[in-house]
Amino acid sequence: MKNKISLIGAGSAVFSLNLIRDLCLTPNLAGSTISFMDINQERLDAAYTLCTRYAEEVGIELDLQKTLDRGESLQDADFVINTALAAGHHRLREGLSIARRHGYRVGGSYHIMHDEGFWINFYQLRLFESIVNDILDICPDAWYIQVANPVLAGITYLARKYKEAKIVGLCHGFGGVYHLAQVLGLEREHISFQIPGVNHFVWLTHFYYKGEDALPLVDEWIEKEAPNYWETCRPSGGLGPKAVDLYKRFGVFPIGDTCTPGGGTWPWWYHTDAETEERWKEDPSKWWEIGYFPHLGEEVERIIRVSKDMSVKVTDVFPPRKSGEVMVPLVESIACDIPRVLITNIQNTGDFVPGVPRDFEVEIPTLVSKRGIQGIKTDGLPGALISYILRDRVAPVEVELEAYEKGDRQMLLQLLLMDPWTKSEEQAENLLEDILALPYHEDMRQHYR
Amino acid sequence: MKNKISLIGAGSAVFSLNLIRDLCLTPNLAGSTISFMDINQERLDAAYTLCTRYAEEVGIELDLQKTLDRGESLQDADFVINTALAAGHHRLREGLSIARRHGYRVGGSYHIMHDEGFWINFYQLRLFESIVNDILDICPDAWYIQVANPVLAGITYLARKYKEAKIVGLCHGFGGVYHLAQVLGLEREHISFQIPGVNHFVWLTHFYYKGEDALPLVDEWIEKEAPNYWETCRPSGGLGPKAVDLYKRFGVFPIGDTCTPGGGTWPWWYHTDAETEERWKEDPSKWWEIGYFPHLGEEVERIIRVSKDMSVKVTDVFPPRKSGEVMVPLVESIACDIPRVLITNIQNTGDFVPGVPRDFEVEIPTLVSKRGIQGIKTDGLPGALISYILRDRVAPVEVELEAYEKGDRQMLLQLLLMDPWTKSEEQAENLLEDILALPYHEDMRQHYR
Repeated sequence: MKNKISLIGAGSAVFSLNLIRDLCLTPNLAGSTISFMDINQERLDAAYTLCTRYAEEVGIELDLQKTLDRGESLQDADFVINTALAAGHHRLREGLSIARRHGYRVGGSYHIMHDEGFWINFYQLRLFESIVNDILDICPDAWYIQVANPVLAGITYLARKYKEAKIVGLCHGFGGVYHLAQVLGLEREHISFQIPGVNHFVWLTHFYYKGEDALPLVDEWIEKEAPNYWETCRPSGGLGPKAVDLYKRFGVFPIGDTCTPGGGTWPWWYHTDAETEERWKEDPSKWWEIGYFPHLGEEVERIIRVSKDMSVKVTDVFPPRKSGEVMVPLVESIACDIPRVLITNIQNTGDFVPGVPRDFEVEIPTLVSKRGIQGIKTDGLPGALISYILRDRVAPVEVELEAYEKGDRQMLLQLLLMDPWTKSEEQAENLLEDILALPYHEDMRQHYR
Repeated sequence: MKNKISLIGAGSAVFSLNLIRDLCLTPNLAGSTISFMDINQERLDAAYTLCTRYAEEVGIELDLQKTLDRGESLQDADFVINTALAAGHHRLREGLSIARRHGYRVGGSYHIMHDEGFWINFYQLRLFESIVNDILDICPDAWYIQVANPVLAGITYLARKYKEAKIVGLCHGFGGVYHLAQVLGLEREHISFQIPGVNHFVWLTHFYYKGEDALPLVDEWIEKEAPNYWETCRPSGGLGPKAVDLYKRFGVFPIGDTCTPGGGTWPWWYHTDAETEERWKEDPSKWWEIGYFPHLGEEVERIIRVSKDMSVKVTDVFPPRKSGEVMVPLVESIACDIPRVLITNIQNTGDFVPGVPRDFEVEIPTLVSKRGIQGIKTDGLPGALISYILRDRVAPVEVELEAYEKGDRQMLLQLLLMDPWTKSEEQAENLLEDILALPYHEDMRQHYR
């Protein structure tokens, strides 16, 4: 089945490579056109060259194209995958460092001490909208597949505003359940699970191994093996003492980025001071500084190095193994009508996670096929976690989206007042002023009045 | 139309007297039986005597009865009004003083530094349930009219659990709009308004005077007269600088106890320290200590004094003027089928305030008649205020009700962790322990495990 996939932000080579690897292993999609689009020529070239060599080595027929022009990339597209980060990581880090000076800490701070800081999300939301508008103009039947963050705010906003567009968000966070299975020594292909929630706040409510309840195995691991595991595991890890403590409190296990720095390091009370963090083996800065930024940097560097080194076989460096990302299976399911249950992010129209507003994003199992994406009603989450979704995700995101939609500075201030580390209005106001005063935030200054 | 009204907690003489005054001025209800019930003989006798003399002086035929036995009072009742406070004010004050020692402040603290503290609500919820259970046994067709706090948590809980009961909550908070009218110099009978929300969090979204938009008059008052008014007004008043500032931020005016100590002194950021409070002319302790407790005490004392002094005419001391309370008009509307629009507290089944969960309490205009109580769909509230309802009212109340329903101490701790003044888990845990350790909280200790 020949399709055209437009990849926006293709210079983020990790995503491009994963996409190509998965496509190479999906014969159904042979013959498809992949249009790489980025605004950075050098990164675009690197990703394009690498992926072209990869496809050649594997011997799959794919029509790879590259362009700096988004309109050209969208022409005749059937799927538009957005992985782009409008404002680079240096802006994120500068904002974080200013916030730290104003007394902010990591820990349940979703819109300040997190990579979804309001000064990142503003540009992301604007980018999302402009892509969807272009799609509606140029290729109105195409699916818009949003991989870029913020998935939660983005899907909530876009699904409400662009009802005529086909919109879905993807996040690999649920894959944390495979990590849990691996640590427990369970074979991946024999587990089944339910992990409902909203993006970056999903919880394992049902877990089976070979048809038997596997939660007792989790309990056993916690009792017998976790302490040893914690001796050597990564700080702020998804199976660390904090995750286990949350499981004991709420009865369901936090998965993926639910309680790690990648998802906002929820909740605040494990992070009140250095001593408390140490007790819980939490070190969010280390997670970012050691585990995330350099990893990303290294990977990008490695990709650029390999793309320029014609003496190596790309497939030797990056073996053709499926990435586990949902992008290509989703495209295949829709394009070739192969119905599959995939975890995606859509609007909660069918009360799929009871208690989350119906016009808000949820991350749930969905049936994906030629018919599109159909939500599956889950058994939901314990009441307290729904309350936390309303309190820590729905309320601030609604305020952020209202601020964005109306260009309302007061609402942006309200967003900051909802942060768990805001101790006075003055503190929030000063942070807002300092961020908006950065020279490169001229657009954001103009927007929020 | 002869009816039987059972008044639970009739020893709270202020309510009893208001009820009798309003009944005396409602000829339609002449001949009705009023059963005063309380567990305190002395207070019951005082209220009964006073009200008997009042009815005689006015010359209305009412069959006044008194009893210490709730079952007797409920026998054949058509309406059951609950005004009772299960745990006395001294318990509230002891809890508040412990919380203060643990670093808690007034300001958006709905379940700690407020008269709806969790150690008050526990006994209230238990009382509410036991009354409703008795009603379902003894007089299943009777209306349960809850005037006692917490109205929000109580109505939410009861309406979900006792679907076969007729349940409604009443609060006079909306009457703050008449105070606003009075300060603006507007005649009460010529204003109309819409004030949607949840109990103790209601906002004036529409305000007309003689058919014209009256919000410009509010704006004019703020600009020209408010500063003078603030020179002499009560601290933490409903028309103080804080209320006006909230109006400027959100575009709708907080009414009644929405931002005053009576409703939890929402939000926190006007109360971060003494200097900030002074800037906003806020002094919640003074509001309670000068304006509330002594007022209540004085009123009770005056009622007891008058009830014992046969030389005075009761109607001279308490002139026969309608109280403005909704209780008697509501009873009359239902009993005599006089359809009226009254502000009541019911479940949001019809999405009357869009964005509030449909199984949660709302305070809205309702059509009251023989048919019962029918919600009127309002135009709702600005998005940011709905977000605050989800964040500060729905989320913690859901956690409180789950804790109560399951007797779950961990959920009670979660409730405390949601308080804006909780700075560490240890602080919340210590407070919880100290409150539960009070000798008279044996029942609560047993309940929360």
